Amino acid sequence: MASPHQAPPLGSIIESVLYTQDMARAREFFARVLGLTADLEDERFTAYPTGNTMLLVFQQGQTGETVQLPHDMGTIPPHDGAGRQHLALAIPAGSLEAWEAHLAGQGIEIEGRTRWPKDSVSLYFRDPDGHLLELVTPGLWPCY
Amino acid sequence: MASPHQAPPLGSIIESVLYTQDMARAREFFARVLGLTADLEDERFTAYPTGNTMLLVFQQGQTGETVQLPHDMGTIPPHDGAGRQHLALAIPAGSLEAWEAHLAGQGIEIEGRTRWPKDSVSLYFRDPDGHLLELVTPGLWPCY
Repeated sequence: MASPHQAPPLGSIIESVLYTQDMARAREFFARVLGLTADLEDERFTAYPTGNTMLLVFQQGQTGETVQLPHDMGTIPPHDGAGRQHLALAIPAGSLEAWEAHLAGQGIEIEGRTRWPKDSVSLYFRDPDGHLLELVTPGLWPCY
Repeated sequence: MASPHQAPPLGSIIESVLYTQDMARAREFFARVLGLTADLEDERFTAYPTGNTMLLVFQQGQTGETVQLPHDMGTIPPHDGAGRQHLALAIPAGSLEAWEAHLAGQGIEIEGRTRWPKDSVSLYFRDPDGHLLELVTPGLWPCY
């Protein structure tokens, strides 16, 4: 029998967030280097679909107050972030060489590289804010 | 014809990262409130599978140096983060009331609530580090 404290079902992380000091610079990078196209953007944030998830990039200093949405849609509480955050994006196994060539062609230095069990490979590099981005081929986790 | 600068294919965000000031407190919260079970953990981090993605929680102050993996597996460059970060997790549409009851039962205050077009609903609350967690039912984004 389920415990009375057992949590209801939970799915994937749908939105992951990076904070930028310079939105124009971040947008140039994510379009040119990762090939992302914004689904929604304003002076405060940019929302990029990638696979089945969203990358949200927020302008630092623009998220510290509660957002009141129009039409009684509700409120979004404040958040903020600093430092050199980390996130990992999936790439197909067969695309590793193409990604290495693409990053080199865009002047992006690969700062770290790992080969995990099951032949999953990770490439690590920085965005202009110093965030540590990882591209990883399948096999790293039971769910990937 | 594809542009020579077009990026290779990119998939979903597989790993999203939060930084904690107190790993024991974070683990208690993520198990009790979100029902997550670690797939891997050490003094430096905890890795939680959720849906097709991973939530990685790192201890602040433990990620500032390059990690040399054993057996020539490679290196993971430094990263770090601070502030009250934000991320959103998918929940099934039919689980909204169960989540509201569960959060109330665990003493978690719902700090914000939004109703998006297409009847997607978001609930916002804090983890012990002040990170803004969102549970959201489908319909918010084209990919979700």
